[in-house]
Amino acid sequence: MTANFNDWMKDVQAQVEDALDRFLPASSQVPHKLHEAMRYTTLGGGKRVRPLLVYASGALFNAEPKALARAAAAVEMIHAYSLVHDDMPCMDDDELRRGKPTVHVAYDEATALLVGDALQAQAFAVLAEAVTVPPVRLVAMLHLLAQAAGSGGMCGGQAIDLDSVGVALTLEHLEHMHQLKTGALLRASVLLGALAGRDIEPHELTALAAYSKAVGLAFQVVDDVLDATADSATLGKTAGKDAADNKPTYVSILGLEPSRELAEKLRRDAHEALAPFGEQALRLRELADLIVQRKA
Amino acid sequence: MTANFNDWMKDVQAQVEDALDRFLPASSQVPHKLHEAMRYTTLGGGKRVRPLLVYASGALFNAEPKALARAAAAVEMIHAYSLVHDDMPCMDDDELRRGKPTVHVAYDEATALLVGDALQAQAFAVLAEAVTVPPVRLVAMLHLLAQAAGSGGMCGGQAIDLDSVGVALTLEHLEHMHQLKTGALLRASVLLGALAGRDIEPHELTALAAYSKAVGLAFQVVDDVLDATADSATLGKTAGKDAADNKPTYVSILGLEPSRELAEKLRRDAHEALAPFGEQALRLRELADLIVQRKA
Repeated sequence: MTANFNDWMKDVQAQVEDALDRFLPASSQVPHKLHEAMRYTTLGGGKRVRPLLVYASGALFNAEPKALARAAAAVEMIHAYSLVHDDMPCMDDDELRRGKPTVHVAYDEATALLVGDALQAQAFAVLAEAVTVPPVRLVAMLHLLAQAAGSGGMCGGQAIDLDSVGVALTLEHLEHMHQLKTGALLRASVLLGALAGRDIEPHELTALAAYSKAVGLAFQVVDDVLDATADSATLGKTAGKDAADNKPTYVSILGLEPSRELAEKLRRDAHEALAPFGEQALRLRELADLIVQRKA
Repeated sequence: MTANFNDWMKDVQAQVEDALDRFLPASSQVPHKLHEAMRYTTLGGGKRVRPLLVYASGALFNAEPKALARAAAAVEMIHAYSLVHDDMPCMDDDELRRGKPTVHVAYDEATALLVGDALQAQAFAVLAEAVTVPPVRLVAMLHLLAQAAGSGGMCGGQAIDLDSVGVALTLEHLEHMHQLKTGALLRASVLLGALAGRDIEPHELTALAAYSKAVGLAFQVVDDVLDATADSATLGKTAGKDAADNKPTYVSILGLEPSRELAEKLRRDAHEALAPFGEQALRLRELADLIVQRKA
């Protein structure tokens, strides 16, 4: 672990891009348009925050690269599918994502629907083929991913989000929504990276859960700050959308400066949670910094 | 296996209803509307053809009830999610399903989208909890389900279907489409039931695959015949829709009477495929009969 953070990050991002390319069906395969659209939306973009978390915690648990590549590709496919569906007209109705037209704009709505559905299935197929992981642990990983993606995780958070438009949420409710909507999959990323290496001891699970919770909330607070302050070109998606959609955000509830302070506090919480792991948790600490200090 | 087919079928349907009820999140759990809509669309309806196939092949492979209940609930959740998404305005735009308003009509489009997404995740979570199945076999089952649901199975068939509207398909292309769209999940149901019991020997896999292929095509041929001949009240969904949507069907390509003859031939093929199993395959034979002789 001698490389500096930026080199490590670029190396992981390249590995993830390569893994996604190998684990997505080729566009030469029937049905061409569906496979092309799955690749269009998944490849060549994004910060790959979730895969970075997989690799960072995998490094801590001595996971081997083949298992990490599958776990990382699986969480990224779940994330990519959620973006495609969230962008559809019946949800956020967004036309720009990662600086490109969204799938329902570049293709059509029916294709966007199927792309999301097929990416979710592909995530489980890709993970289930992690043959280097002992089956009993692999079942636990598949279960973890399913729960993080479902109505008790990401989909549930999205449902709460939909129901909150125009509603005066308390900070507590906002936190609960984000813990499901983005927190569950970020937490799953951290735990999948660890499980790709070995079983997680109870005290380690406590530490990783605390880290994930802090990082997940920080991620969302920073998202809200950026949505309120950055421009669309920098973000690669439509800026100022939350306010326009009358959605509750950390910025609308706490104000801009207190939101920035909260993100900084959560970054310190994340570092503290990692204390039991000592020096070995370097990449996870650096990722917490990245998530709070990012500009897009 | 002394009960007659109808009693056996009713018993399995009751077990499946009970399993789905237990394996779907309670509507009292947040987010209420999402969970209520997931239950609305999954419970209390449908012929449960896929779960019946799971149990019938499970009986042949001595699977125990707890594992069968999870496998059956998982395939039915995948099926239920696909119906919810297929009915949405950007796809088939259907307002009636199993005699009830479709989810996007009873709730709204965003909820329908999330219901489908969450049901797919729940299917994998429910199956991953089949603790009585040895993990190495359970991983194979999860992988099989993911592949049957994805772009090489159900979603892929749906994509080909979308691209075929108004296109003069050959019989061969129509078959390929249906083998993905409905055949893949029917085949997975048969294999999951077997795997819930024990490993499948190569010669058994050949037999079960041939049976599944015949039953899957028969299912679709009969669907097309019923769509052309039955009324909406009997079907519990809008009849005559394929012709109205200008979709290629067995009836539009072969004509009505040859389609009926084909269904009958496929029923005989299904029976023949089961010959190696002898008397023990009674339920699978009876299910082939049911699929061809059904009136809705």
